Amino acid sequence: MQNVKVLLVGFGVVGKGVAKVLLKKEREIRKQNLDIRLLGVCTKSGSVIDEKGVKLSEVLEFAEKGRLKEHPLWSQKRALNIISSINADIVVEVTPTNIETGEPGLSHILTALNSGKHVVTSNKGPLALKFWELVEKAEENHLKLRYEASVCSGLPTFNLVRNALYLNNILSIKGILNGTTNFILTKMHEEEVSLSTAMAEAREMGICEADPTYDVEGIDAAAKLVILANSIMKMRKTYSDVERTGINEITSEAVQLAKNNGYVIKLIGEVSKNTLEVAPRLIPRVHPLNVSGTLNALMFKTDLINDIFIIGKGAGQIETASAVLSDIIEIAKN
Amino acid sequence: MQNVKVLLVGFGVVGKGVAKVLLKKEREIRKQNLDIRLLGVCTKSGSVIDEKGVKLSEVLEFAEKGRLKEHPLWSQKRALNIISSINADIVVEVTPTNIETGEPGLSHILTALNSGKHVVTSNKGPLALKFWELVEKAEENHLKLRYEASVCSGLPTFNLVRNALYLNNILSIKGILNGTTNFILTKMHEEEVSLSTAMAEAREMGICEADPTYDVEGIDAAAKLVILANSIMKMRKTYSDVERTGINEITSEAVQLAKNNGYVIKLIGEVSKNTLEVAPRLIPRVHPLNVSGTLNALMFKTDLINDIFIIGKGAGQIETASAVLSDIIEIAKN
Repeated sequence: MQNVKVLLVGFGVVGKGVAKVLLKKEREIRKQNLDIRLLGVCTKSGSVIDEKGVKLSEVLEFAEKGRLKEHPLWSQKRALNIISSINADIVVEVTPTNIETGEPGLSHILTALNSGKHVVTSNKGPLALKFWELVEKAEENHLKLRYEASVCSGLPTFNLVRNALYLNNILSIKGILNGTTNFILTKMHEEEVSLSTAMAEAREMGICEADPTYDVEGIDAAAKLVILANSIMKMRKTYSDVERTGINEITSEAVQLAKNNGYVIKLIGEVSKNTLEVAPRLIPRVHPLNVSGTLNALMFKTDLINDIFIIGKGAGQIETASAVLSDIIEIAKN
Repeated sequence: MQNVKVLLVGFGVVGKGVAKVLLKKEREIRKQNLDIRLLGVCTKSGSVIDEKGVKLSEVLEFAEKGRLKEHPLWSQKRALNIISSINADIVVEVTPTNIETGEPGLSHILTALNSGKHVVTSNKGPLALKFWELVEKAEENHLKLRYEASVCSGLPTFNLVRNALYLNNILSIKGILNGTTNFILTKMHEEEVSLSTAMAEAREMGICEADPTYDVEGIDAAAKLVILANSIMKMRKTYSDVERTGINEITSEAVQLAKNNGYVIKLIGEVSKNTLEVAPRLIPRVHPLNVSGTLNALMFKTDLINDIFIIGKGAGQIETASAVLSDIIEIAKN
């Protein structure tokens, strides 16, 4: 049985999801000869830590009741101190994305890599801003940095390319990287409502980012696109290199005109040799990239197997946690 | 550098494709620290073998000119003798599918496993008929049996589930497993032609199986479905367990009626707890399973990340060879 000690930094929706999936899949994980032990969780205001391992179900219960501070192991010790001093194998960084500074994720990840821990993250900010700095830091220290959950959540993208496409060169990637704007555009197309009506409905459903401009201005999609560009296409780009047009100026008339001609308007991210762009584009009505609602869809153009598409939910607590766990398991197994 | 000695059994479209991809990707393969050496090729009428390795480009050139028998190393030695006696690490079995007997693939695979060779195959017959017998024989002898190319060619299915979906349980699989019937149904839908007209066009394009009933009666799709059912859903089924209805009774009127109601008719294979069936089904016009032309599409229902879809070309020489190579590399690396 291989023992893997994990520190969870960030205990919001994704962090709790990771705890839930660890509990749900306890038996399957053990079957793979892995003993994944949680040493604790760090939040903005303090932490619950035990170097021998915390009781996962108990920590989760306190957190779900909003009473993590009442946990017997609670202290106000700060995440950065814990990350650098704890005896963990893997730091799981799942704090919220900040696309301007990358913080606090950026410091968390660098501190983990500088103190000899592998890193698994769902946080787009640090990767979209400082991809190669982080990757090179990890390589320098012979550590792994994995980020499957950062793009399209549970939908496999990096794992698909690395573990299933093998000798294929990826010539371009194109797709729908943001479920909220896709929901809005689908509403406008199918129900012929205005942008503001569709946006209001998305907000009501709670599927918008904390800051709704992240979605509608294409910021979230651009962050994901630049991670794909760097990781899969080996470009050396940063977030600000992405040409970005959001959906905020899409009118009902434009959607209708597209519809009358057999097209849909979709917010498409595309990376190829000469393109790094997020913008609204016309897609034929019957086409693998015309997916409805909150679905995400990615097309990989390859040299051996032509175009392949992968489609699925690009968000969700358990979905994202599933991707985080896949990274933990991959690191543990190697 | 790890040395991998490969024997190619079958040197038709797929076998030649494997040789082409090996040549095309020589540098990338070496970069992965692998030296894949071809010890020779076996055909129905004889073989070209050199235990020290044959010159790939030369063998391919003779074969492409239809002059393999003139190759200096040509002999009439039979495949089964060579498989059992040669000092190869991996036997690549890429002879044509026979869904009644599984032969000659079945004997080739069993002989390879009985003489200590790993097996990579694109041949659906042996797997659709004797899946567990072959898998258990491989396990008994601590050998690998891999068959990514047998279902949907280059489109990753088994590799996707094993190497990218990790902890996810697959609850059901549903999809379009045969490109030729999908081409025919797409023609009938889009151009409103009859079944026989669409079939004639498919034949002209050379995309039908040698025996066209393999496609239109759903035989090819059923063979793939039962491999998915066994491999991914751990069922113990054989080809004859699949309930099978082809597209041979689909009329223009039925297609038109579906179209008028916003649907398309697709030949769908489905495996779930209580279903193992290939049959024409109605799919909504905008749906990830409504793919056009010769595309294949698969939906995996999972417990963690919901429904995911993978779409791409389900046939083609280089595509199939790409999947065969992915299996060779995976075996070589472990």
